[in-house]
Amino acid sequence: QINGDRLWDSLMEMAQIGPGIAGGNNRQTLTDDDARGRALFQSWCEAAGLAMGLDTMGNMFARREGTDPEALPVYVGSHLDTQPTGGKYDGVLGVLAGLEVIRTLDDLGIRTKHPIVAVNWTNEEGTRFAPAMLASGVFAGMHDEAWAKDRKDAAGKRFGDELVRIGWQGEEPVGQRRMHAYFEYHIEQGPILEDEDVQIGVVTHGQGLYWLEVTLTGKENHTGSTPMYKRRDAGLGMARVIELVNEVAMDYQPGAVGTVGHMDAYPNSRNIIAGRTTFTIDIRSPSKETLDEMRERIEDGIDTIAEALDIDVSVDEVGHFDPVTFDATCVAAVRHAAERLGYSHTDIVSGAGHDACWINRVAPTAMIFCPCVDGLSHNEAEEISKEWAKAGADVLFHAVVETAEI
Amino acid sequence: QINGDRLWDSLMEMAQIGPGIAGGNNRQTLTDDDARGRALFQSWCEAAGLAMGLDTMGNMFARREGTDPEALPVYVGSHLDTQPTGGKYDGVLGVLAGLEVIRTLDDLGIRTKHPIVAVNWTNEEGTRFAPAMLASGVFAGMHDEAWAKDRKDAAGKRFGDELVRIGWQGEEPVGQRRMHAYFEYHIEQGPILEDEDVQIGVVTHGQGLYWLEVTLTGKENHTGSTPMYKRRDAGLGMARVIELVNEVAMDYQPGAVGTVGHMDAYPNSRNIIAGRTTFTIDIRSPSKETLDEMRERIEDGIDTIAEALDIDVSVDEVGHFDPVTFDATCVAAVRHAAERLGYSHTDIVSGAGHDACWINRVAPTAMIFCPCVDGLSHNEAEEISKEWAKAGADVLFHAVVETAEI
Ligand SMILES: NC(=O)NCCC(=O)O
Ligand SMILES: NC(=O)NCCC(=O)O
Repeated sequence: QINGDRLWDSLMEMAQIGPGIAGGNNRQTLTDDDARGRALFQSWCEAAGLAMGLDTMGNMFARREGTDPEALPVYVGSHLDTQPTGGKYDGVLGVLAGLEVIRTLDDLGIRTKHPIVAVNWTNEEGTRFAPAMLASGVFAGMHDEAWAKDRKDAAGKRFGDELVRIGWQGEEPVGQRRMHAYFEYHIEQGPILEDEDVQIGVVTHGQGLYWLEVTLTGKENHTGSTPMYKRRDAGLGMARVIELVNEVAMDYQPGAVGTVGHMDAYPNSRNIIAGRTTFTIDIRSPSKETLDEMRERIEDGIDTIAEALDIDVSVDEVGHFDPVTFDATCVAAVRHAAERLGYSHTDIVSGAGHDACWINRVAPTAMIFCPCVDGLSHNEAEEISKEWAKAGADVLFHAVVETAEI
Repeated sequence: QINGDRLWDSLMEMAQIGPGIAGGNNRQTLTDDDARGRALFQSWCEAAGLAMGLDTMGNMFARREGTDPEALPVYVGSHLDTQPTGGKYDGVLGVLAGLEVIRTLDDLGIRTKHPIVAVNWTNEEGTRFAPAMLASGVFAGMHDEAWAKDRKDAAGKRFGDELVRIGWQGEEPVGQRRMHAYFEYHIEQGPILEDEDVQIGVVTHGQGLYWLEVTLTGKENHTGSTPMYKRRDAGLGMARVIELVNEVAMDYQPGAVGTVGHMDAYPNSRNIIAGRTTFTIDIRSPSKETLDEMRERIEDGIDTIAEALDIDVSVDEVGHFDPVTFDATCVAAVRHAAERLGYSHTDIVSGAGHDACWINRVAPTAMIFCPCVDGLSHNEAEEISKEWAKAGADVLFHAVVETAEI
């Protein structure tokens, strides 16, 4: 069993960096606080005698050697970046539990056949630079590296420039590592495990996603003196699209979700009809067919809305991944570990996207979930108990050790 | 007749200060550019030998003496501040036409019985600091000065501090001046005059207005892993309120308008359900009864929407004026001037709010409109012709001179 106190203390120490305003964290990717978080993780890896690799996308790989020089490593990790109003566990738990697996092996004097590598993937959250899971996506060959480096934040800063600025662009070419397996431990970010009073989620599938960034262009004009019939109101258009996304998602629930969480109006003045709005539609489903149907209905609906309001539309896909089926052997390793340890468990579909969803394309992959209070995540009030954190890390330890072989 | 070229040149020179990004202006109230615009106006007034008064709200009063030391002045003016994406004429035309009236009197060597005062009212637009027409409202006793000084912009800066910072807070107590009459010349900001091919709008009434700032509070949570039925989505709530405002306005049109042009979502991340939205409802009608009915329907509707989505609501009135009936004698002076000069004219209701709407409460007041291209205003592409500008200024000149008596 892993050391639950040590894992918890590391989580709390990392949470000191990039504090939020309500008890959580704002440690967005490629900020100075991201650099500080990375340095802290590196210092812990050095203390554990691990060799740190750093690739050109800023992905960090801390390696513990195995006994067989020919054997491919077992990778274990997640991400240290957070939402602008994020919690202390989303991502961080998976990285620090990876380190905790290694620390426990050291405590027990166990050497595995396969090396073990604890990994921190750059820009999982995707808020500052869309899409999410950007660097693991490049690693898995899903995105072109030059395209990824050219992603811009809301202030127009380039991903590539910011990575260099914070000092965490490495020399190692991205995506050349081969993996024996990849395990990612994460909080559920949803309410199912807590509602069912289960300790461990054995993640069998992940939802697919589209992020569609929509720009509606109408005409700025005076709110008081422009008759209703003369308007080209991009704000009203956005409102109708938000309602449409909700309607479509409600038609497919519980097998789908749909949301608009990002929305900007321009020039955003009380007495100017919005001339332009930009917002992102987020739709997800474990079924590719459902997902594509939703997208089609929404895109058709947007055209109808725009025509009725005499506004122009552009739709840009800024994120996409297909539904994921995780590797049967790795999933079984997780399930067996939970059984062996006597933790209650259930199969579950991941509602969120994870780096594991991309890595699954290039290596046998599985995920472990622990519950989180009220299913709350992407919220500074995100919370888990020390016992929950430990149970999942125990399962991770056993699954990793079984796969890395003693 | 006034000098149309001189008026136009002054307009173009003022438009150099605080240029926008698309040919218009961004000279928002109490910015450094506002200070520069004021200084330019002051220099022109000094060149015309006028004495400048400045009150504690930053209102500027440039006075040309009359022949009767007992006679109250005729005031004429508007505002020099603009929208963030404003035009070159909204407000500016009325201030500079006031100055042009005085310059023409000087050219012609005419002395009037009543003094004439050209005025620039502070913060007419209301975008940076709500409500609109703030300083004329304080002048007319509609707002408390301390309350007005405490208005904050989106960055939290106080009106009072910014007025001092730009160096345009005067010593003169606000609202103590008495007026013989007040005339304000403005672009229509709507399509009626151009559609009817009429040169002069004789403004008989002004619409009333409510600005309701709404904050909806739901719960931030993950867009992917939060089931539809577990959501408290403040973004969806905002969308429904925007649609409601449109619906209510459509029910009362053409006797009303309703818009949401200001809308902010928090934390505004693609994969976070909006935990909070803040936006401003702008409703207007020439009928007080209609306006109050609309407000009631909208407030009731917001409660229904919020209940269905399990979100909290607060509604804050950040702007309000009742419909206005301008002074019959002053309005007649405008109409007679147009007739005498042979300009086509029509009675019209102002869709926008104007400083004249407040001053009408403390002095006999009237307004003159000229057309604007496509009815476009609160848009950098706002445009008028030199001929239109001159026609209205001629009417202003005649109405002012008739009222100020020779
Ligand atoms: N796990 C997580 O929150 N990932 C961010 C990408 C997503 O929105 O699913
Ligand atoms: N004239 C004008 O645009 N005033 C601003 C206040 C309003 O929104 O009516």
